[in-house]
Amino acid sequence: MNSEQKYSVTFLPANKSVQVKGGSSLIKAARKSGLHINASCGGAGVCGKCRILMEKGEVSGGSSEKLSQEDFNRGYRQACIAEIKEDIVVRIPEESSRQKGGLSTEIPKRHHARMHVFDMESLKKEDIFYPPVEKLCLELSPPDSHDNRADIGRLIQGLADQEDKHRMVTGLTVLRKIRRALREKDFLVTVTIEQPVNNKAKSHILNIQAGRWNHRNFGLAFDIGTTTIYGVLIDLNSGQILAKNSCYNPQMSYGEDVIARIIYAEKPKGLNMMHELVTDAMNSIIDTMLQAAQPPSDPSYGPITRDEVNSITISGNTTMTHLLLQLEPDNIRRAPYVPVSTFFPPIRAEDIGLNLPHHCVALLYPAISSYVGGDIVAGVMGSGMYRTELLTLFIDVGTNAEIVIGNREWLACAACSAGPAFEGGGITHGMRAVEGAISDFSMNSETLEPMNVTIEGKAPLGICGSGLLIIIATLFENNILNPSGKYRDIDNPRIREGRSGREYVIAWEDECAADHDIVLNEVDIDNFIRAKAAIFAGVTTLLDQVGLQVSDLEQIILAGGFGSFIDLDSAMSVGLLPEVDPDKVLYVGNGSLMGAWMSELSNHIRRDVVEVVRKMTSFELSEIPAFKDQYVASIFLPHTDLSLFPSARERTQKR
Amino acid sequence: MNSEQKYSVTFLPANKSVQVKGGSSLIKAARKSGLHINASCGGAGVCGKCRILMEKGEVSGGSSEKLSQEDFNRGYRQACIAEIKEDIVVRIPEESSRQKGGLSTEIPKRHHARMHVFDMESLKKEDIFYPPVEKLCLELSPPDSHDNRADIGRLIQGLADQEDKHRMVTGLTVLRKIRRALREKDFLVTVTIEQPVNNKAKSHILNIQAGRWNHRNFGLAFDIGTTTIYGVLIDLNSGQILAKNSCYNPQMSYGEDVIARIIYAEKPKGLNMMHELVTDAMNSIIDTMLQAAQPPSDPSYGPITRDEVNSITISGNTTMTHLLLQLEPDNIRRAPYVPVSTFFPPIRAEDIGLNLPHHCVALLYPAISSYVGGDIVAGVMGSGMYRTELLTLFIDVGTNAEIVIGNREWLACAACSAGPAFEGGGITHGMRAVEGAISDFSMNSETLEPMNVTIEGKAPLGICGSGLLIIIATLFENNILNPSGKYRDIDNPRIREGRSGREYVIAWEDECAADHDIVLNEVDIDNFIRAKAAIFAGVTTLLDQVGLQVSDLEQIILAGGFGSFIDLDSAMSVGLLPEVDPDKVLYVGNGSLMGAWMSELSNHIRRDVVEVVRKMTSFELSEIPAFKDQYVASIFLPHTDLSLFPSARERTQKR
Repeated sequence: MNSEQKYSVTFLPANKSVQVKGGSSLIKAARKSGLHINASCGGAGVCGKCRILMEKGEVSGGSSEKLSQEDFNRGYRQACIAEIKEDIVVRIPEESSRQKGGLSTEIPKRHHARMHVFDMESLKKEDIFYPPVEKLCLELSPPDSHDNRADIGRLIQGLADQEDKHRMVTGLTVLRKIRRALREKDFLVTVTIEQPVNNKAKSHILNIQAGRWNHRNFGLAFDIGTTTIYGVLIDLNSGQILAKNSCYNPQMSYGEDVIARIIYAEKPKGLNMMHELVTDAMNSIIDTMLQAAQPPSDPSYGPITRDEVNSITISGNTTMTHLLLQLEPDNIRRAPYVPVSTFFPPIRAEDIGLNLPHHCVALLYPAISSYVGGDIVAGVMGSGMYRTELLTLFIDVGTNAEIVIGNREWLACAACSAGPAFEGGGITHGMRAVEGAISDFSMNSETLEPMNVTIEGKAPLGICGSGLLIIIATLFENNILNPSGKYRDIDNPRIREGRSGREYVIAWEDECAADHDIVLNEVDIDNFIRAKAAIFAGVTTLLDQVGLQVSDLEQIILAGGFGSFIDLDSAMSVGLLPEVDPDKVLYVGNGSLMGAWMSELSNHIRRDVVEVVRKMTSFELSEIPAFKDQYVASIFLPHTDLSLFPSARERTQKR
Repeated sequence: MNSEQKYSVTFLPANKSVQVKGGSSLIKAARKSGLHINASCGGAGVCGKCRILMEKGEVSGGSSEKLSQEDFNRGYRQACIAEIKEDIVVRIPEESSRQKGGLSTEIPKRHHARMHVFDMESLKKEDIFYPPVEKLCLELSPPDSHDNRADIGRLIQGLADQEDKHRMVTGLTVLRKIRRALREKDFLVTVTIEQPVNNKAKSHILNIQAGRWNHRNFGLAFDIGTTTIYGVLIDLNSGQILAKNSCYNPQMSYGEDVIARIIYAEKPKGLNMMHELVTDAMNSIIDTMLQAAQPPSDPSYGPITRDEVNSITISGNTTMTHLLLQLEPDNIRRAPYVPVSTFFPPIRAEDIGLNLPHHCVALLYPAISSYVGGDIVAGVMGSGMYRTELLTLFIDVGTNAEIVIGNREWLACAACSAGPAFEGGGITHGMRAVEGAISDFSMNSETLEPMNVTIEGKAPLGICGSGLLIIIATLFENNILNPSGKYRDIDNPRIREGRSGREYVIAWEDECAADHDIVLNEVDIDNFIRAKAAIFAGVTTLLDQVGLQVSDLEQIILAGGFGSFIDLDSAMSVGLLPEVDPDKVLYVGNGSLMGAWMSELSNHIRRDVVEVVRKMTSFELSEIPAFKDQYVASIFLPHTDLSLFPSARERTQKR
């Protein structure tokens, strides 16, 4: 079976066809075609509700002890554990479909943000592919009695004559190596040069090697997330990524969020401990990537060595950056929230404990404030927001949501304390987006039977952020929830009184991997509404500060882990995101990592960062009286002002 | 006895008076008044020839076993061991004086170069007293909810608002200290700032301290001589020197001259050894100075600590600088004489092994070539040559003589291999200018009896450079030597045939501390003439290259150890220096140390160095055909072209 090959799946009686990759589950194919199949167990094959009938072709798997041999012989399969391997036609029986039959088995088509893919070609086309660190090979003439200038003078003259490079400085390390380097290969040398960020400053000669080595020039980009650390190894000559690796941020063991980390760092030796944890993790990622990578041009050159890494760009939020640099972060968590620094001088990678060569330079993305960090600045750079003419809302949702509004002319930003709801925190059965988390959902509007889609198709364990969003949106769109986020009085076994108000049972205990029913209660919903209200109020307040309104927005850019799964219609239904044409929503993935990566590839971007930070106005929402009003107006589904959400209103009223 | 008090000494029968300091020897008073007293033993009191008769007043000492009690009672004293303690009148008896009597007991008046004294006041008057490293005290306002910028941003804004200081950068060390420093004394802090050498570059915030510390700002200046290392500790607020110290360069044990040091450095670990020797010596000088120094303003502040030293400027010749920085010096000694570097990036003092704080910056004086080093550049800066309108010859005589010609408009330089004659090398009884070295001399032109003045008044051990010069000049002026440097056939016990041609006996074995007669033979004189010819030919060749002649010179600046003792008339008589009015000759002492010191005090001078180095044209004498001709013309006393030396000719012809 070729997993890249696509197959046609036709669902009856709706007669809807969809193309899916080989190996996909039948339940995901139904989701994609806009059809609902009852499926509580999220693909674990244990609830046995997702039975479909094969009418043409066959699937792999599709049966467990929940399916009798007789039914199997009759052509029934369990959709959640059936993998597609050829073109098929299947029938959704009444008990599995949303309604008794007809067109209404359809569920609303969901929109996801267009993926913004980083494009080397456009960097080259815009003529900004100039890696800040480059390697140049020079053939110099040996000294004689008429030209006995110093070794370093000879090199610098060579750079001027052969490469039109001027205004160079160097340090002791190169001076200590140059005599041998020049003479080892008869005055054929390769120099590593770092362009200055500031045009007026000088270029640095970082390294010198005997012989021709300019085809090997490597850099690193890192995103230090509170939860996950991501690294990429880059060929600085081609711009290609040679290896990627990531790991959980090991600081997690000492606190899930930045506040807990700061508190730990205030203990004796706590800051050193936090620093060592992150650098150890980075070193291990670097090791893994170096072992995995092969230089692209010619395999005969052998593996990439640590000494060939010439630069590293790192982005992270303000707290992560402080911990990495061993800057005392305690005032970040105490009003008036003062970080030690928001910009960071260029340093040597070895100065922060990275196992990289002495000459390797490290650049840290500047931050804006304690809660709008270098990761957001990197996202603004990496997503291209700072170069667009469109009035853009950039939003990165996690425990804190950071918002940037603006375009190439101006930028305004703010941080909202959204709380951890979007990461599963404060939700009774909330969890992170890992195996077994319910991440997608649909519901039979009559029976309220769910179709739970889980990460990796495991039996459900809990609900992650994207699942929470779509569950609440679905319940609200189907009038199960009122605008205050309370369950209506509906007679259905899945709606019941629980310890925290009414609750909806998403999965029964015997269908899931948890030792209890998985439910969503009114306190959970309230926490969610408060979180989304903080974000939406942040957006409207920030717009208000610059004299604009939601309707002026021309583009939304989503960044961060949450953005990759987000269902746009749900987000607009509940009033998390302003209503715009879904085609105008871009998802940049890990914008922070992308920004770091682009800084490795383009000195223009390193220069522009300075300008972007300078022109980004930071607003402290808690200091703006209107924010409170906006917040109060937002703690409804979707909002008190329904004119802001015409489509959502329409969707809700339809039912 | 007050050694600062001056007394009058009158010599009969010449009836010449002179004012001398208390404690001076009578023989030095005679020398000063232009009178000769026979004195072979250099002040050790052993030859007994220097008897004088007290006519009024008394001296301390003045008698040894060489003087009978009867003679002592008659008023005879030994001039060389008689110390002046009051106004006296003494008679020089015929046997001690140069001739049988009358006016001709006089010896030519000797001229010494005017001492150029470094003048803080003129730095201030010229408005260039701006130490590159300054300390500023700031009272900052604490953060509040309306001003919660980062700590470093607050500091930088404070520098802009309160001190009009802009364009600042800093490093990790300050970032790691700033949080505590700001809050420890309620936002009263002192920052240490280094101005950039280049006007376009940024200023560095080197350090931050809680509280008011701007009254304590200290720097160091060092001259790394091949023989001696000199250091001074400077109060950067006042410009005052707080302590001085020096020691022999411990590399001396591994070779007397730069070539021997380079050869040692080529051995395995030799470079590290050379480096450690010099840094150990510097560290010990720093320790001694810190212990000796008291801050000037207020003794209650206690001693100066290592942490308060913010900058150090170091000058030395090209080889010394290479060894200090661990740059491989081997090509300095091999044609075509290529150093690793002639300019040196600003570095941290700790990077070269100095026990100074992490934030302390080190600046190395740039060199011109392998044999015109940073010590010469520092001398050109320290002596003010680079700012004068006068056409100046700057000359530093040691094993190598370095010559610079020019003024504020242009500069040309060259190094001459003078050989070690001026440091006592290659001279049968030559020695360095240490205790017991004959450093001054006069002679009875009839009897050829010498008056030997030795360093520290010890019995003669040998002849140092200044002694050699004046002995040869005296012998030549008195027609004992012909212009080729050969002794004329004179019947006197002091002129005799020796193993290396004829020789003049300067001190008999029983008058000196050596176990042989101290003599000067024709081979010694030949070596001397070759050395002085190389220097003079260097001067005339360099002048010729720029289209000038000796008569165009308006000023001579002497630098280095040799210059302090040099007798100008002798130097012009033998043709070592061009003939100019002795009033136009300045002696700057250790110009290298002075240049380093001035760089600590004036950022203008640090900036000007770059320009001076840029405009100094270096000539390689061995590559100029005319140099050989000039040299051949110069290997005579004083020269083949006597028109260049009208006064010397006159002095010689007179006799």
